[in-house]
Order: sequence, then structure tokens, then C-alpha cells
Amino acid sequence: MRRIAFLLVWVGTMTGVAALMSSASGNADEAAAPFVTEKPAGYRDWKWIASAHEEGNLNSLGAVLGNPVAIKAYRAGTIPFPDGTILAALHYSAVPSEENNKIFGKAQSIVPGSPTNVPFMVKDSKKYAATGGWGFGHFNANGKPVDAAFMKPCFACHEQFRAHDLVFTQYAP
Amino acid sequence: MRRIAFLLVWVGTMTGVAALMSSASGNADEAAAPFVTEKPAGYRDWKWIASAHEEGNLNSLGAVLGNPVAIKAYRAGTIPFPDGTILAALHYSAVPSEENNKIFGKAQSIVPGSPTNVPFMVKDSKKYAATGGWGFGHFNANGKPVDAAFMKPCFACHEQFRAHDLVFTQYAP
Repeated sequence: MRRIAFLLVWVGTMTGVAALMSSASGNADEAAAPFVTEKPAGYRDWKWIASAHEEGNLNSLGAVLGNPVAIKAYRAGTIPFPDGTILAALHYSAVPSEENNKIFGKAQSIVPGSPTNVPFMVKDSKKYAATGGWGFGHFNANGKPVDAAFMKPCFACHEQFRAHDLVFTQYAP
Repeated sequence: MRRIAFLLVWVGTMTGVAALMSSASGNADEAAAPFVTEKPAGYRDWKWIASAHEEGNLNSLGAVLGNPVAIKAYRAGTIPFPDGTILAALHYSAVPSEENNKIFGKAQSIVPGSPTNVPFMVKDSKKYAATGGWGFGHFNANGKPVDAAFMKPCFACHEQFRAHDLVFTQYAP
């Protein structure tokens, strides 16, 4: 399996992983690490990097979009990603399309339902030095950011993907 | 269920539907209807409309991207889509990510695998008058277009979505 893609793990909905990570890490520096509290502007206009579907409890269908710095880096295979890179993971509930399935004659079509959340990764190697140079952010469907406790496990989980500069999602050609 | 999204039904892989449609239609005009034989340029840079996952035999994960005319029409709710609209459905095999699942501690992550095909819909109400104003196209992973017989059922299936101007995919906000 050559692709490992995925999606700026959004921790709040991943309670199992979150609990695991926070119990495994949790020093004072990390508790104070800054995270992204303002939604980057214009992200819905960014280019598509890849889609992802999460089964089970997450039950999510979404896409990762990237700003111009991100797209250039992905296409050039630049690792680590340069400062200025921003990744946005647009998540929706994954719902069966009854209308499509009726036409297809079987239950197969899964489409985006209601928006659930939008996590971000913002590369700024100075500002976010405590979390691998990445600022993590997570905004609920109402546009509001989550709190620091919610964000704490992000880095500990993403840190496991050092070879990809902490980014799970791979570019779909 | 308020969303019905889906994806420029790509007929070749949908043998059941295709067979159904061609037996239900199949007049001489339709057999001669033009379809898209040149891949629209630059589509990988277009904006994201929505993602879709097809289970079962299709086993597909992909995204629909639209050119600027398409995006403007979607956002304004313009139906029918104006001439110049182009939609591209980038399809990949849907594969589990073993690396992600290992981190998550369970099998839940489905990501894009190998590219499979890219169907297009091109709106030109004169050129494609015989097929509802849409030119349908379908390019395999090698970049080559399919033949006329393959394309014949496209219109008959899409025609069932008159209320959406023959377009299955809805815009993910």
C-alpha cells in the first residue's frame, strides 16, 4: 500500500487516540503550546490535495485543501513543508445518498452530509516550534475554535509521522 | 437527507446501470451524439466541489472539481449551468490506510489509492444539444478517452436528474 493519506487527525472526535496520546505525553511546555485560534481566510477556494473517508464512529467524508505554498510543496515533494504552508481538512458527516442508490439499484453511494469541523495545520517554524513547527487548529461547524485541552493531543499523534513532516495526507495525483 | 451528491456517473464501471439504460433508450440520434474526446486542460488546479465514496464493486474514492464557471454557478445556485461549465470527477480506488489504522487503533481510514478514471461534463448547449446540453467524457488512468459505445448510457442515466440540470454532485459548503 503506497499511500498512507489521511487527514490532519482531528482529535476531539478521536477520543481513544486522544486519551492514549495525552497520557503518553503531557509535559508543561506542551500544555502551553500555541495553537491556531483564527480560521485562515479563503480556505474554501484552495486547491484539492486529497479526499478521505473515515468509517466507524467518525463516519466522516471530507477533503484536504491546501494554500498555494502547500500545493507547490506537495507537487515538488518538498519535506519539510516550508513556513507559510496551510492545510485545511473539510469534514462532513458521511451519509448514504438514497437518491443515487435508487438510480444505481444498490446501496453504494456515500456523500458529504452536514459539515462537522475544519481542522487546520499552519507551518510557522518559530511560532509553533514547540509542536514541530506546525500550529494545529480545529473549528467546529459553528466556526468557533476549540479550547487548548482539546488541541493538546494533536502534536503527539501527528509526531508519529516524522517522515512526512507530521502530515498524514498525501497528494492524490 | 438533504444532499443527494454524486459524481458524474461513470458508466463503464456501472455495468448494471449501463445495461439498463441502453436497453431503455438507444435511438439513432443518441448513438451519434458527440462526446468529449479531449481532456480539458488544467482541471487538477480547479476548485473542489465535493468528495464521494462509492462502496461495493466500484470501490471508489474521489472528488469533483469545477472550472471557474462551474464554481460560480454552484455558489449562486444557478440552474441550468451556463455554457462553459466543466466538471471533472477524479476517481481513485478506495483503499484502507494500514498506517493510519495502526495509529488509530482500528480499521477506519479509507484513502485514495491508484487513479482509475476521470469523467467530465462539459456544458455547451449547441454542440451537445442531443444530450441535454452536456458533453460527457471519460478518460482512463492512461489518459485515453473511451469509445462511443462506452459513452452512450451517460445521458440516459444523468437525464434522470433534470431538477439538477443532469448533475448529481452537490456543492459541499
